[in-house]
Order: sequence, then structure tokens, then C-alpha cells
Amino acid sequence: MATATKPTKKRGRKGRTAAPEDTLPVVDDAPPPGESAGEGSATAGPKAVRRRATAQALAAGQRDISVSEFFAKNRHLLGFDSPRKALLTSVKEAVDNSLDACEEAGILPEIWVRIEQVGESGTRYRMSVQDNGPGIVRKQIPLIFGKLLYGSKFHRLRMSRGQQGIGISAAGMYGVLTTGKPVKIVSKIDRKHPAHYYELRIDTKTNQPEILNGKGEGVDIPPGKGGDELMRKHSIEWVAANDRGEPIEHGTRVTIEMEAKFQRGRGSVEEYLEQTAISNPHARIHFGGPDGQDRVLERASDDLPPEPKEIKPHPYGVELGRLVTMLQEQPKLTLAQFLTQSFSRVSSGTARKICDTAKLSSRVTTGKLGRGEADALYKAIQETRIPPPATDCIVPIGEQRLLAGLRQVVPGEFFTAATRPP
Amino acid sequence: MATATKPTKKRGRKGRTAAPEDTLPVVDDAPPPGESAGEGSATAGPKAVRRRATAQALAAGQRDISVSEFFAKNRHLLGFDSPRKALLTSVKEAVDNSLDACEEAGILPEIWVRIEQVGESGTRYRMSVQDNGPGIVRKQIPLIFGKLLYGSKFHRLRMSRGQQGIGISAAGMYGVLTTGKPVKIVSKIDRKHPAHYYELRIDTKTNQPEILNGKGEGVDIPPGKGGDELMRKHSIEWVAANDRGEPIEHGTRVTIEMEAKFQRGRGSVEEYLEQTAISNPHARIHFGGPDGQDRVLERASDDLPPEPKEIKPHPYGVELGRLVTMLQEQPKLTLAQFLTQSFSRVSSGTARKICDTAKLSSRVTTGKLGRGEADALYKAIQETRIPPPATDCIVPIGEQRLLAGLRQVVPGEFFTAATRPP
Repeated sequence: MATATKPTKKRGRKGRTAAPEDTLPVVDDAPPPGESAGEGSATAGPKAVRRRATAQALAAGQRDISVSEFFAKNRHLLGFDSPRKALLTSVKEAVDNSLDACEEAGILPEIWVRIEQVGESGTRYRMSVQDNGPGIVRKQIPLIFGKLLYGSKFHRLRMSRGQQGIGISAAGMYGVLTTGKPVKIVSKIDRKHPAHYYELRIDTKTNQPEILNGKGEGVDIPPGKGGDELMRKHSIEWVAANDRGEPIEHGTRVTIEMEAKFQRGRGSVEEYLEQTAISNPHARIHFGGPDGQDRVLERASDDLPPEPKEIKPHPYGVELGRLVTMLQEQPKLTLAQFLTQSFSRVSSGTARKICDTAKLSSRVTTGKLGRGEADALYKAIQETRIPPPATDCIVPIGEQRLLAGLRQVVPGEFFTAATRPP
Repeated sequence: MATATKPTKKRGRKGRTAAPEDTLPVVDDAPPPGESAGEGSATAGPKAVRRRATAQALAAGQRDISVSEFFAKNRHLLGFDSPRKALLTSVKEAVDNSLDACEEAGILPEIWVRIEQVGESGTRYRMSVQDNGPGIVRKQIPLIFGKLLYGSKFHRLRMSRGQQGIGISAAGMYGVLTTGKPVKIVSKIDRKHPAHYYELRIDTKTNQPEILNGKGEGVDIPPGKGGDELMRKHSIEWVAANDRGEPIEHGTRVTIEMEAKFQRGRGSVEEYLEQTAISNPHARIHFGGPDGQDRVLERASDDLPPEPKEIKPHPYGVELGRLVTMLQEQPKLTLAQFLTQSFSRVSSGTARKICDTAKLSSRVTTGKLGRGEADALYKAIQETRIPPPATDCIVPIGEQRLLAGLRQVVPGEFFTAATRPP
């Protein structure tokens, strides 16, 4: 093939002719390894040119990559593609968490979103989001805000806005990377306990939070006048009462300084908050932008939406690999018990049908099932009629609430809303 | 606002009127927390309805999420969106690794890609990719193929095809999740040492490899006839010699069974391999598809491309947050030493200019620089003229090689190629 590198014209598809079968698996008419005479290993194979690195040398460079390093380099995967999008994503992640926390605690959400310009360049902003939610207990605060892939919502089969345990900590990491400034968090669980104040940043090498204030322990802010003094002294921001004079006795406030671009209109923070207000008419949202125009998106309904229920996985939605893992995790059940207890919508009758189709005894112990049996079980599940999953794990907004939200946010003369069963 | 839920028409933008400033930070004319009389914590804030979960209850559900669990759920982020794309991505990740390994070892690559249908459903395929590369030392094999975010190329500033240490292990995980079948790896570092054979799967809960064969240790295949016997007995596939009778004495073969869709034409594995052959004319690529049509994409050039050099980061490309971390990592240098040693293209003259602009002494110790100084240093770097980075960290294919590749793969009468300086 050496002639092919000469700049002569050439026709046809030389590379497209079928080649003789390579020796696969090892067969006797090819020289097996270890028996071929001739060249040493360093020059073996088709015309090796120079040996630059051995397998041993390559192995020396292999090492773990922390998930934070990965996402610092691949931040676009998490919505931090551009300064504009980074700001929007950060606000969204914080507001999602606030709405979820209020919902779980049965609190009508009130949320303050504030965006301030830092310096004169127009490329740096400080975003803060506070809620009146249940607050976060002290030892969880650093992990929730300073560690990627930590949270309560990932393993749950239940509707929530946030899901992955990566959003708000990624926003904090983006802030630290672009400005070097720590993430600031205040959280308060009730009016009697002290609030906690943390300044922290994610250590991207280890994906662990590094707490910078209070000698690495954070700072407690006692309730009452002493605490107010402390907050004033440290310039800790906290909305202690809303514009109606109602005290805010619990909640969380997160502040992130970041390289960002602030704009109004399409794809802006304000537009996102309007849409959030429409789909969450039970929330009251305050927005203060860097140009001083403050807005309140008023609560349109005092009813909390029904609480979504956590459900078990539906058999149709479980991949074979996951099924194998589930069987291994519960090795001491009978197959019938396993099916009825691990999945939603599997009655003992359905379990029996699945076992029959798979030609397996319903009384066999799960731990004794091999790969072949798991395969048969998986196929049998696909072939068995199983009712669709319960829908109370999701809660649609509903026509009434959607209408209320629309009326509150969008000016218009006629409003209508439609919803379909989930 | 309760009336807003009634279905009456309403005009205007009630929510858009400016609201009075909320109390931020704590001011005296709002009731500070802990001093407001009245309701207990459980019903504090604006009309709480029912308290479902406390901060303590929410904390109980918080936990670590393994990076494998995250990517099992978010596999689209890594190119496993659909069965067709999953197959293509898996082949690409394996071939990328093969080309990179051969390049680092100075070996002219020969690569075998084989895709076989499994069963009759048309939804399951077994993909295997073998190369004549340097091989992988025994203890690294499970980590490279059975752990996400592990590798040698992530921390390096140097051109390579693979970068992230997540591709081939994610392909293996996808295979395990969709078929339950382990990933199979054979690797051989020279003709004298035994080859290693592993069957493994990623444990998604821990992101660690679980080795299934040889009692969790894998199996050694001795060189010579004994090894051939062993391979035949265990149906271990290995191309021991190419179609020209040249022995393949080192290399790696990975086999993954997965839910997939095989097709020809646009976006197919075959198209990808053709493009790979064009841009890597020094590679010889064998392709065997499930419909039996075998192809060899012949090597068009016996010259290895020049080896790219690893470089240090260029000052313009370092974010403020990264600069702060770099300063902390080397706290005992003078600022001038730090600048000239940590970055490319910073001469002592340039370092002095940066220090002058930042109003910092070039002899100050890096460990003594605070956040404000780091900020000043960052700004000074942006304002100082620094030559562009060296280009030997990337190696363009070049016109000659591109032409050779084109001629070999694409039928045509006239070929031309153009390249620009990097």
C-alpha cells in the first residue's frame, strides 16, 4: 500500500473488496502467538515504526477522574453553556429546590429571587434565592450545596422538579470556577433554633465541600437580637419578614456570584419566573433585577397541590440489567414474593402468570435464579398483560390552578385551560 | 388573592405592580425572627396549610448518588440515546481507544470491528473491537472497562481521540443494563507474557468493576499451545494473526452485548469507520457486519502521524477559579516562578509585565496571595499581551495524509485536500 501515498490518480474501490476471513477464534493454520519466530515484541505486528510507550508506561498515567472535574470540563451537559444560560440555570435549580422543599413540607411557597450586578464589567452577577421552606439541617447543608450527585430525589419514583442531586451544587461550582467566590447559604429550620450560615466551595479534585467560614464549621446565628447583630456584622442577607410584615421563620437562602449575562425578554430569568408562577399558582415569587425594577408575582391560589405519591417501578419499565440487579439485592424471597413486592401493579395472579410464562416455579428462591432464568423472566414480563402504573405519583397542575396562574400573570380578556388524564 | 381562583374575568396586571422592598438585610422595622408573637413554627409563614415533612425528615432521605447511577439514568448525555446510536457510540469509543493506544505506543494500528446479531429479535447485537495496540496491564483492565471516570487522558493538555475516561466503560454499562451480559476483555502486552481475560460488569451502585470470571480475579492465558486450548475451551475470541499471516502479538479486544439497532448508510457504523479510515490513513480497519459482508479499509500510509506534545495551560484559557486553585496548589513559589512554570508562553519578561499590571511584587510568595490579589492577577493576565499557545499539542492530519486516506476510501477521479495552520 506504500504506493498509495504517491500523488497519482487512482480509480476504483480498492478498499472495498471483501477480505479473507481473519483467524477468529484461534485456529491452527495461523501462527499462534508465542510460536511465531522472528522479531521481538517491540517491533511485532505489521511494520511497527517506533515504540513510544509500553503498556506499563501507559498504565502509570491512569487515574480516577472526579465527577466535579468531569462536569467542570463538561459544564454544557448541565446547562452552563453560556453566561446567559448559566444564570438562568442557576436560578432555575434554586427555585426548583425551593418549590420542592415547600411542597414536601406542606408550606405555601414564598420565594425571593434577586440578581445584582457586581463591578462595572457587566459580566459578573450575584444571584440569590430565598424561600420560606422547611430549611435544611446543619450537617446536610455543605453536602447539598458543595458536592455533585448528592440528594434525596434521585432514587425516588415520584414527581419532583429537581431530580438528580446535581443542579444547585453545579451552579455553585460554576460560580466558584468563574469568580473564585464561595457559595453562601443561610438556612433556618424554625424560629427557636439558630440559623446556620455557610460559605463554601466545592473542591473539584475530590467532589467534597470545603467550608471557608467559622474555621471550617460554618457559623451559627442565634435567634433574637444577638443573631440580628451577627448578621449585620457579617453582611449576611436574609429576608426576615415579607412585604406584608409576616415573619419568615424558616427557609433557605443561597447566594452565588458568577460570570453571567443578564437580559430581559425571551430566555430570561424573568420569563422563567413568570412561567413558574403560571404553573405554580400556589407560589408567591418576588423578583429583583439588577436594573432595580422589583416585581411580585402574586399567589393566585391558597391551595397546595395534592402531594404526589412515591411508587414502585412498573415491570414494563425495568431493563433486563436492572432486573438482574434487583434479583441479586433480594436473594431470599420466593419469585412470587419478589414480583408482588418489588413492582407496582403485580397481583399474586399476575405474578403466577409471569412465572408460568417463564416456565419458573413461583416458589423458587430469587437467589437461585441464574442469568438464563432472569432472561426468561424478563421476556415473560413483556408478554404478560399488566395494568398501567398508578398515576398518583404525578400531579398535573389541573385546569383550575392553571387558569388561576394564567390570570395572575398574563394580561388578557379570555382565559381557558385544558388538561388530560395522566 | 383567594378570589382569583373563582372563574371570573379579570383585567390588568395585578402581579406586575412594583412591590415595596422586602426587608433585606434584617432591618428593625420588620419583626425579627424569634421575636414575633403568635403562631408556632409549624404554621408560620404565609398561611401554611399542613406540615408534611420537617427538615429532619427530609434530611433522612439525602444520600450520595453514584456517578454510574447518574449516567445509567442520563445515558443520552454520553451518546446512548437510542439503540442505533448506542451501537455507533460503543464502536466509536472502542476504536478511539485503539487508535490512541497505538499512537502512544508508536504502532501502526490494525483494528477489527465485528458486529453480530444475537437471537432472532433483531434488537440485540454483540460488538467486538480488537486492536494490535500495546495492550493493557492486568490490574488496569477492570478499571478501564468497569468504572466510569477513570483514565489517563483527562488531565492532559494534548490531542487525543478519547478524552474523558467515560466512553468505553459507559458502553459496557449500557450493555450490562440492557442485556445483563458482562463485558469481555482480552488483553496481551507481548508474546512472552500471558494474556488476561476478564468478564466483568460495572456495579452501578458503587461505580466499581465486578469481575465475574476466575473467582473474581480474571483468567490468565499462557502463551503457546496451552493458551490456545484454554481459549478454545472458553470460546474466547482473539484474532491471532491477520489475513496476511502476520501474528498479532499484543493488543486488546473488547466484546459488549447490547440492545442495539444495526443499519447501513448514514449514521451507521460502516460510515463512521470509512470516515475514520480517511482521517487515519495509517490505520488498517477490518469490518464484519451481521449480514456477513466483510470489508478491509486498507492502510494508505505507513507513516505514523507525528506525536502530539503535552503542553501547559495558556494563561488566557485559565478561569479565575482555576487560577485560585493553582495558586493554592503551589504555595511556595515566587509569583514570577509560578507564572513561568505553570503556564506556557510566559517568559520572565511577560511574568514581570503581569506582576506590574497587577501591582504585585514578582517575588511575593504564592501562598500569601489572597482572593483580592488573585483577582488582580487574573485581570492583569487578560490585559497583558501573551503569544498564542504552541501548536505542537495538536497534529492536523495534513494534506498528504488526508489525500491518501480519501483515495483509499472514496471512489473518484480527482482528489484534493487543503489544510490550514492550527
